[in-house]
Amino acid sequence: MLSSTTEPTRSPSKIGNKRVFTFSDAYKAFDGNRDEMKELLGGKGAGLAEMTASGVKVPPGITMLTSCCREYSAAKKMPDGLFDEVLTELKKVETELGKTLGSLDNPLLLSVRSGAKFSMPGMMDTILNLGMNDKTVDVIAEKTGNARFAWDSYRRFIHMYSNVVLNIDKEEFEDILAEKKKEAGVNNDSDLNVVQLKDLVQKYKKLVLDESNSPFPQDVHEQLKGAIEAVFKSWNNPRAVYYRNLHKIDHNLGTAVNIQAMVFGNYDNNSGTGVCFTRNPSTGEKVLYGEYLVNAQGEDVVAGVRTPEKISSMEKAMPDVFKELLATVNKLETHYRDMQDIEFTIEQGKLFLLQTRAAKRTAQAAVKVAIDLSNEGILSKNEAILRVDPMQLNQLLLPSFNASEKEKAKREQRHIATGLNASPGAAIGKVIFDPSEAESLAGKGQKVILVRIETCPDDIHGIVPSQGVITSRGGMTSHAAVVARGMGKPCVAGCEALKIDLEKEQFVVGGKTFNKFDTISIDGSTGEIFSGEIATEEPAFSAEFKVLLSWADEIRRLRVRTNADTPQDAKVARDFGAEGIGLCRTEHMFMSQERLPIVQQMIMAGSPQDRKEALAKLLPMQKEDFAGIFKAMHGLPVTIRLLDPPLHEFLPRAEGLVDEIATMKAKGETGVELRRKEALLKTVHALHESNPMMGLRGCRLGLMYPEINEMQVRAIFEAAIEVKNAGLEVLPEIMIPLVGHVNELRVVREQLEAAAQAVMKKANVKIDYKFGTMIEVPRACVTANEIAEFAEFFSFGTNDLTQMTFGYSRDDAEGKFLHKYLDGIEGGAKKEKILKNNPFEVLDCSGVGKLMKIAVEYGLQTRPDLKLGICGEHGGEPSSIAFAHQLGLNYVSCSPFRVPIARLAAAQACIG
Amino acid sequence: MLSSTTEPTRSPSKIGNKRVFTFSDAYKAFDGNRDEMKELLGGKGAGLAEMTASGVKVPPGITMLTSCCREYSAAKKMPDGLFDEVLTELKKVETELGKTLGSLDNPLLLSVRSGAKFSMPGMMDTILNLGMNDKTVDVIAEKTGNARFAWDSYRRFIHMYSNVVLNIDKEEFEDILAEKKKEAGVNNDSDLNVVQLKDLVQKYKKLVLDESNSPFPQDVHEQLKGAIEAVFKSWNNPRAVYYRNLHKIDHNLGTAVNIQAMVFGNYDNNSGTGVCFTRNPSTGEKVLYGEYLVNAQGEDVVAGVRTPEKISSMEKAMPDVFKELLATVNKLETHYRDMQDIEFTIEQGKLFLLQTRAAKRTAQAAVKVAIDLSNEGILSKNEAILRVDPMQLNQLLLPSFNASEKEKAKREQRHIATGLNASPGAAIGKVIFDPSEAESLAGKGQKVILVRIETCPDDIHGIVPSQGVITSRGGMTSHAAVVARGMGKPCVAGCEALKIDLEKEQFVVGGKTFNKFDTISIDGSTGEIFSGEIATEEPAFSAEFKVLLSWADEIRRLRVRTNADTPQDAKVARDFGAEGIGLCRTEHMFMSQERLPIVQQMIMAGSPQDRKEALAKLLPMQKEDFAGIFKAMHGLPVTIRLLDPPLHEFLPRAEGLVDEIATMKAKGETGVELRRKEALLKTVHALHESNPMMGLRGCRLGLMYPEINEMQVRAIFEAAIEVKNAGLEVLPEIMIPLVGHVNELRVVREQLEAAAQAVMKKANVKIDYKFGTMIEVPRACVTANEIAEFAEFFSFGTNDLTQMTFGYSRDDAEGKFLHKYLDGIEGGAKKEKILKNNPFEVLDCSGVGKLMKIAVEYGLQTRPDLKLGICGEHGGEPSSIAFAHQLGLNYVSCSPFRVPIARLAAAQACIG
Repeated sequence: MLSSTTEPTRSPSKIGNKRVFTFSDAYKAFDGNRDEMKELLGGKGAGLAEMTASGVKVPPGITMLTSCCREYSAAKKMPDGLFDEVLTELKKVETELGKTLGSLDNPLLLSVRSGAKFSMPGMMDTILNLGMNDKTVDVIAEKTGNARFAWDSYRRFIHMYSNVVLNIDKEEFEDILAEKKKEAGVNNDSDLNVVQLKDLVQKYKKLVLDESNSPFPQDVHEQLKGAIEAVFKSWNNPRAVYYRNLHKIDHNLGTAVNIQAMVFGNYDNNSGTGVCFTRNPSTGEKVLYGEYLVNAQGEDVVAGVRTPEKISSMEKAMPDVFKELLATVNKLETHYRDMQDIEFTIEQGKLFLLQTRAAKRTAQAAVKVAIDLSNEGILSKNEAILRVDPMQLNQLLLPSFNASEKEKAKREQRHIATGLNASPGAAIGKVIFDPSEAESLAGKGQKVILVRIETCPDDIHGIVPSQGVITSRGGMTSHAAVVARGMGKPCVAGCEALKIDLEKEQFVVGGKTFNKFDTISIDGSTGEIFSGEIATEEPAFSAEFKVLLSWADEIRRLRVRTNADTPQDAKVARDFGAEGIGLCRTEHMFMSQERLPIVQQMIMAGSPQDRKEALAKLLPMQKEDFAGIFKAMHGLPVTIRLLDPPLHEFLPRAEGLVDEIATMKAKGETGVELRRKEALLKTVHALHESNPMMGLRGCRLGLMYPEINEMQVRAIFEAAIEVKNAGLEVLPEIMIPLVGHVNELRVVREQLEAAAQAVMKKANVKIDYKFGTMIEVPRACVTANEIAEFAEFFSFGTNDLTQMTFGYSRDDAEGKFLHKYLDGIEGGAKKEKILKNNPFEVLDCSGVGKLMKIAVEYGLQTRPDLKLGICGEHGGEPSSIAFAHQLGLNYVSCSPFRVPIARLAAAQACIG
Repeated sequence: MLSSTTEPTRSPSKIGNKRVFTFSDAYKAFDGNRDEMKELLGGKGAGLAEMTASGVKVPPGITMLTSCCREYSAAKKMPDGLFDEVLTELKKVETELGKTLGSLDNPLLLSVRSGAKFSMPGMMDTILNLGMNDKTVDVIAEKTGNARFAWDSYRRFIHMYSNVVLNIDKEEFEDILAEKKKEAGVNNDSDLNVVQLKDLVQKYKKLVLDESNSPFPQDVHEQLKGAIEAVFKSWNNPRAVYYRNLHKIDHNLGTAVNIQAMVFGNYDNNSGTGVCFTRNPSTGEKVLYGEYLVNAQGEDVVAGVRTPEKISSMEKAMPDVFKELLATVNKLETHYRDMQDIEFTIEQGKLFLLQTRAAKRTAQAAVKVAIDLSNEGILSKNEAILRVDPMQLNQLLLPSFNASEKEKAKREQRHIATGLNASPGAAIGKVIFDPSEAESLAGKGQKVILVRIETCPDDIHGIVPSQGVITSRGGMTSHAAVVARGMGKPCVAGCEALKIDLEKEQFVVGGKTFNKFDTISIDGSTGEIFSGEIATEEPAFSAEFKVLLSWADEIRRLRVRTNADTPQDAKVARDFGAEGIGLCRTEHMFMSQERLPIVQQMIMAGSPQDRKEALAKLLPMQKEDFAGIFKAMHGLPVTIRLLDPPLHEFLPRAEGLVDEIATMKAKGETGVELRRKEALLKTVHALHESNPMMGLRGCRLGLMYPEINEMQVRAIFEAAIEVKNAGLEVLPEIMIPLVGHVNELRVVREQLEAAAQAVMKKANVKIDYKFGTMIEVPRACVTANEIAEFAEFFSFGTNDLTQMTFGYSRDDAEGKFLHKYLDGIEGGAKKEKILKNNPFEVLDCSGVGKLMKIAVEYGLQTRPDLKLGICGEHGGEPSSIAFAHQLGLNYVSCSPFRVPIARLAAAQACIG
């Protein structure tokens, strides 16, 4: 659960004014308090401190607190005395290792990395091999007896430092490197020899001089200071800001800086670097999972520049290291009581751990890991329940490709390639190569699949709105794979069979060329890519998923109902565990093609009598609808909302009618159809409203045209009697929408009770029913004591209540100003957010919630057994569900696919 | 002040189960408690009881309590034992007079009249001369020696009874009477002789037999029972219901029935009947005022059938009676401590009082009478303040005809006639003869003047929406005159010069014919009628009016500001006593013809830079506006609301533009104007919103386009500095509209404070200013504690707050459902009102008011010196002003013409 506005915790008194700690001092200074450590040391720093303390082999180093970043951002310069503190602490590292930064005897090389409270993979900058200069390179070459390694490290350092600190385009370095490799006739960087690398360094240094008008810095302290400042600055680079907005992370947290002694995976072929998970992050299976690269530095793995080896192959290649790795990671998992994501480096056969953190995982994995850890005795049931983000369950509810359709596609030879199954799920869309174009097309409602050679953090704006992602390079831990898994978005990574030409915007595979806009289908669970579309189907659920939800059901107090308008939806929701229908919208039943003309006839009726005739035709149809729903939900309550929308929604738009009439007249038509359309247009004009959201709708409709309500109530009771006579239990709850004044409800209810009684009397069958109301108008909240006199239940219609409490028309607001309210308003000194969350997605507890609280208190004063629920979209949103729990509501109601989410969130609300 | 939902007071224990009282018993039974008497005896019955008790000569009689009517309405028949009670009490009257109902020795004749708690003049039925039959007519003829009188009374009784009780059309009797007069060759009813009257009675009785299939009832008890039931039923006749709805009188109150011994104004030429006021009900002047008719019954005066004599002429005609009348009415005025409206009858030179009640009066009279009664030592100052209905002051603020324009009209011979000056004020409108047509045209916004020979209660639906009323018959106390005065509507009554032909829908005067739809002007203060229009001008105020308001100012706590957008309005309001501007709407300044193109240029701007250029042109104009207002309001606070409406309001409508463009294209135009219109249309489409009320407006506008706000604030401060430099005191208050979240206000205020400071710094002048916000969104109310952090004042925008609290779009609601909510919903057993008052006119204290209460409490928690006001239309409505007083607000702000009303209402709130 990410908190986004809490003030950063005050420094614990024990650490005093100290701003920099060695890894080994830090754990003790914070008394091992993980929250404080994460807050001030950042996630990575806290991990390094805790790993060091627990005896895992970690290269030594120091961490600058996140507060330094805040100080830096405020002052826009290195805070006074801070760099001296860095040097003081660094001295301890130097002493421990017997190496010194810039020393010509035994020079220390450093990595400088960001590390914020919340993981922001790849969003901020990192510098490796700091401490290299024209002199130390020779000392290292001499001391290691490995000149190639020394010069390779130097050229990497110049490249990275110049890009990150000096802002020189990295492409320019890559061009020089490519040129050099071509000149040397080699394919891999590691095939360049010392002479070639030395020349490369000269060329790099010349580039730096040309671009920055000063030579590459040789002073190692200047290097260090520059690197630290670059990390601080990277906190506010655009992609980091975008990422924080996306994940609702507070922009004020700041990042820590971790300065760590280098170990060298690129030392030789007995060295390497890798990333591994203690369990499979896609499936949750308990097996070491990950990749490594021989003779490489960490960034090579993460950036996906080379395609790495599977970690399992290490067992054969480096059996001792593998064994040690296995033991270490298991120890870490048990220590942290969660699946870990671990970075390691092997230097000349020696294993060092560089980072450990809770692993990002798919929903499937999250569920399985939580249940498994509980079964393994590591977590309690409640802890297991809290381990799964309810919203992540969405992924498990996503459709997959229909197996036989997929087989068929294969027979039709539409299977074009298979890459790594980097993030599960099925996606269909148009091929798009440019992230910005993907963003713009998706914004227009098109489904696109982003195809890239590899992705980098700059591409994230294109990944978010795409249906899925394909890369031709990079592994399971590449940027694309990690980001896509985090979002629950299908991803096929490292599909090298695709020859992608970004300039031509096409890729070639198996001799076929695919162009921009061609439709493809990808299966992230298998890594398969298909041309054209494949039909999808609903997911089946894992045993662990069912266990998790059964545990959730054991402890939650809130009931979970569903919003369903058809027997089909009702059935799906019941299968998902819905305990009733909280909102059955009858207007959707009016919209079907064969009914719409009758509905229009009813609307155009000149008298109540005409209206009744049209309604008489609708009655048997509605009765059938309700009977189907009652059957599907037998034994469970079904809340049916009477007709709610303004009547013009059932009519064609005026503009279209005007056109049609003009065309018919131009053709000389004069018949009955023309007259019908003219009458229709007249009705459309008569029903026109300047603000239909606040016009003739809801119970106002029923008060103006009681015949409509009466027909619906007759249909409900006739259906209920039919289903009850068939031996099923029926529990209808009739809900009057948009009540703002008690008299509206009183009068409507009087009319409808009479209609209900008449139907039951005629059939001589008693139905157990309730009458209640939506609470969706602010006035209803502040007069809930009066309204509760005539309502056996309140169901908060939080969509409309949010609209009216804020005075936002959702249709207008989201396009016209809400996006800016959420994104931030420019204009003043800084970009200011007006709203933290979209109130239509996340319930506004302090405003809308305050009115709900008033309504609950007032309602219960009048009727202590008043049944209370939510049936707005918020009923399926975890933080809103937690609020509903706190308010003491009886149930939430949400769309069928949100039912499992709501069950889990309701349980978490009980524990949290 | 009419209360409309209070339950009728329970019967005081002293009266027990007794349902009928003689006038002389009643006062004692109720201990003289006027409220209880009015409640149960009705206004008329209470007056008769009190008059009887105070020794005024009143014909004896009995009153049936209003509870009898409620019993009757519930049971739909005469309650058990009630008629026996009537006969028992009647016996006391019979004993007192030595006469008996139906007796052949000395028969008693009775009047049977309704009389509800609140006066409903002419709305219910009355029967006179009850007790007449074929036998008693002879006895009376014999005993009085006046056969003509006896037969005249009998024919009147048959006519009245048959119409009221037997539902026979009165026209049929009138036709027979007219025929008879023609046959007899006489003009007046009183010229018919005994033989002719006897024949008339025979003809009347035949008509009754033909129409009702049974002979006219001869049984006097049957007559009495029928008359009582008719009065009960008349409580629910359509015009009575309409009247109660109009005056917000509770439909459950019921009417009392007064059964009183007849005295005969139609006895001979030494008899008569009249109505008089203790003071002039038009001007308040202390002089006996009224009319009487010789040899006539009371209904003749009220119905305006004959034009009566002025009461002053009675001094000469009947000097003794006049003297007695003068003494009696003065005694009654002092007794009741208010101006009285008195009905009297003279029978053979003897004066009887039939009724007294507080007189309806014009606003001018109300003010003068209140002040005079206070000066006369009868009322205290506070009582005088409470005596004037604030809404009535509207009348005094109505324009009158410009004197020189009126002179000019006379020179142009446009003065066509002069009638009685029955109700003051100037009105201009189209001549309409049919009340229903007047209603329908007025509903479409047309100004009409209703012209009738005479009016009756059935015409009231046509009087209400007309600008003014003319009758050619009837006097100052005729129906038209009384009703018009009550409504503050100009009326010229009894203008016999007009020869009105209702069938042809025209009137002829001075040889000229005026047709339906011709425009005329009427001056109700002088009785003059003019053809065509005459320019009007603002009213001058009486000395008493000024005294009343100065008394109000002495005691009120609420300040009264005005809503004014121009220096002219500001000046008018200040003259009316406004103590500042509570709402200056800047959008009106954008609407003027020369500015609109610049405003449109601003709206269509492609970039902030383009927008700033357009705004730069508007800046000097706005500055001039503000400077003018600051000058007009020097020394008083001026609250300026920044731009509020959705921008599309400054653009033409899409439909019109589409037409224009199509036409231009059809003509082959291709120029710059076509392109401008096309661009305009594109902008109109881009700005389209489905619910603009809840869309991009208010502070949202300023957040999206900060340049607009900044221009306005610069204009405000530049103007303030200019005016301050000219030596005047300037107190601007900048108001941000539509704030729903504290961040909106915070960010806007930050931007604007910077702009304000920059202007002041540049000019090196300090302006004393405030920043605050409208509270008009429900969310603002429930988060007012947060919002008050950044607001120095709250001004409740009760129009929008009402819209959003109810979820009503005012534009839509009033036409689509609100009228029915107010009128009552048919469908169930009875018509049910959903809302008592239109919440856009009368503040909804229990809903909207509840939110305001929350906002006030929360706001003061954060900022104890928060300034609080109302600037919605409710700021000028007395009951809403009383609520504002209770809430502890600092001020109300209303339109200039409502300022005096608000001053008085604010004072009444302190006393009441």
